[in-house]
Amino acid sequence: MDDGLLVVISGPSGAGKGTICSRLKEEFKDLKVSVSATTRKPREGEEEGISYFFINEEDFIKRINNDEFLEYAKVYGNYYGTPKSEVFRQLEEGNDIILEIDIQGALQVKKNYPKGVFIFILPPSLSELNKRIENRGTDSKEVIMKRMQCAYDELNYAFEYDYVVVNDEVETAVDKIKHIIFAEKNRAVRKKAIINKIREV
Amino acid sequence: MDDGLLVVISGPSGAGKGTICSRLKEEFKDLKVSVSATTRKPREGEEEGISYFFINEEDFIKRINNDEFLEYAKVYGNYYGTPKSEVFRQLEEGNDIILEIDIQGALQVKKNYPKGVFIFILPPSLSELNKRIENRGTDSKEVIMKRMQCAYDELNYAFEYDYVVVNDEVETAVDKIKHIIFAEKNRAVRKKAIINKIREV
Repeated sequence: MDDGLLVVISGPSGAGKGTICSRLKEEFKDLKVSVSATTRKPREGEEEGISYFFINEEDFIKRINNDEFLEYAKVYGNYYGTPKSEVFRQLEEGNDIILEIDIQGALQVKKNYPKGVFIFILPPSLSELNKRIENRGTDSKEVIMKRMQCAYDELNYAFEYDYVVVNDEVETAVDKIKHIIFAEKNRAVRKKAIINKIREV
Repeated sequence: MDDGLLVVISGPSGAGKGTICSRLKEEFKDLKVSVSATTRKPREGEEEGISYFFINEEDFIKRINNDEFLEYAKVYGNYYGTPKSEVFRQLEEGNDIILEIDIQGALQVKKNYPKGVFIFILPPSLSELNKRIENRGTDSKEVIMKRMQCAYDELNYAFEYDYVVVNDEVETAVDKIKHIIFAEKNRAVRKKAIINKIREV
């Protein structure tokens, strides 16, 4: 059997990664979501192994040193990471996995698993991005300015990805990603099993 | 504007390239078909510039030496080739082009235009391929044996392509190629124009 696809949805903050991923999960019921490990304390309602794998810092650092993460980062004093073991097991079982992640994380994943399908979500324009971040109402003017500068710089990374999808309209963007997922299943690099089978019959 | 796609449909004789290409042309009305040059004499009903560009051998060889062909071959004493000028002009105008071609030709095209989308059409099995070639009723037993040996060897080339599509059922195969064409339009390498535009606004 062919391995599943690791679909990495990434892009600047405010590009709409989260909304797109939610819609993709609705469309592809079989799509697995990878569960991250974190050293952050569980919040109310969060469940071990479903929301996160909750582990302590000593354990997390040991796992970093053992190269057990597809990617990890320290955010506001807490570690977050994607364990390789879980993701690789799912892929080997033929399951497709979706991973929503920032650009630094995606570049780490690419280094560790170049066979992944890396999709960069773009806002239709930087002024639209600015509007979206403002409308969320969660960031101060200073943070918004920082995010905008960051987004501008991050556009450079788009060419490290396999695909670039402009999110001007969510359904159109989701539709494009659906085509990408279907197309990628026919990549020659994923077809060794079937070619060998044809030879035999 | 982004360049059009050069979609190369290739694979062993009897895999069903021709049927698939006809269906794709029906589905994508804007898909252009490249017109080949040949030294063969025009047959009744064939039109210059539509069926073929009919040129003489001296002219053809001069064009080979000027590196004016995406690919060419000599078949039963006649030359056939795909002129670069026509194809590149269409691509630059943003038109997508489909090219149905044997494996040797496709490998030449890849060398000359690696940005193309190279799709290898596979029969579901070699015994099915054998059946299809027999059913065409155009080949002697000896030729069929040769074609089968050739197909077996040619499976090795599948991995030089971007995609491998098994043609067990024409509509399913056409559907897969439709997804591939839509997906390829979002390739990061084809998105330089749009990323620069986003930066400006």
